Amino acid sequence: MNKSDILEKFGEKIKEYRKQKGFSQEQLAEKANLHRTYIGMIERAEKNITLLNIEKIANALDVKITDLINQQ
Amino acid sequence: MNKSDILEKFGEKIKEYRKQKGFSQEQLAEKANLHRTYIGMIERAEKNITLLNIEKIANALDVKITDLINQQ
Repeated sequence: MNKSDILEKFGEKIKEYRKQKGFSQEQLAEKANLHRTYIGMIERAEKNITLLNIEKIANALDVKITDLINQQ
Repeated sequence: MNKSDILEKFGEKIKEYRKQKGFSQEQLAEKANLHRTYIGMIERAEKNITLLNIEKIANALDVKITDLINQQ
């Protein structure tokens, strides 16, 4: 799957907020009730994430989904 | 899969914009390059949509992704 722009931007946003909150990938995965390697794959845009998992990550980061998705 | 709030709200938003634009479900699916029954399933919150398909639908409706996802 060649990397798509929106998945790359989304991955960068997750990484940015995660670091802001001081979480490791594993800590964020645990908080979001996702597999511990999943966050790394999302940050590297290797997964086409679903809306329910976007919601889980937004809640774990205590941000709004719209904070994670900005579309020019 | 019991219907989740965010998928239901998302489905309602798609329907609202689709009707505003005067598209049938099949016309929107064709414009978004998705299977013709897919839009109906999304509107009924029967599918956990992916970010790439959210982007396809937003582009087909000529709206921003953030217009389709509002989180209280």
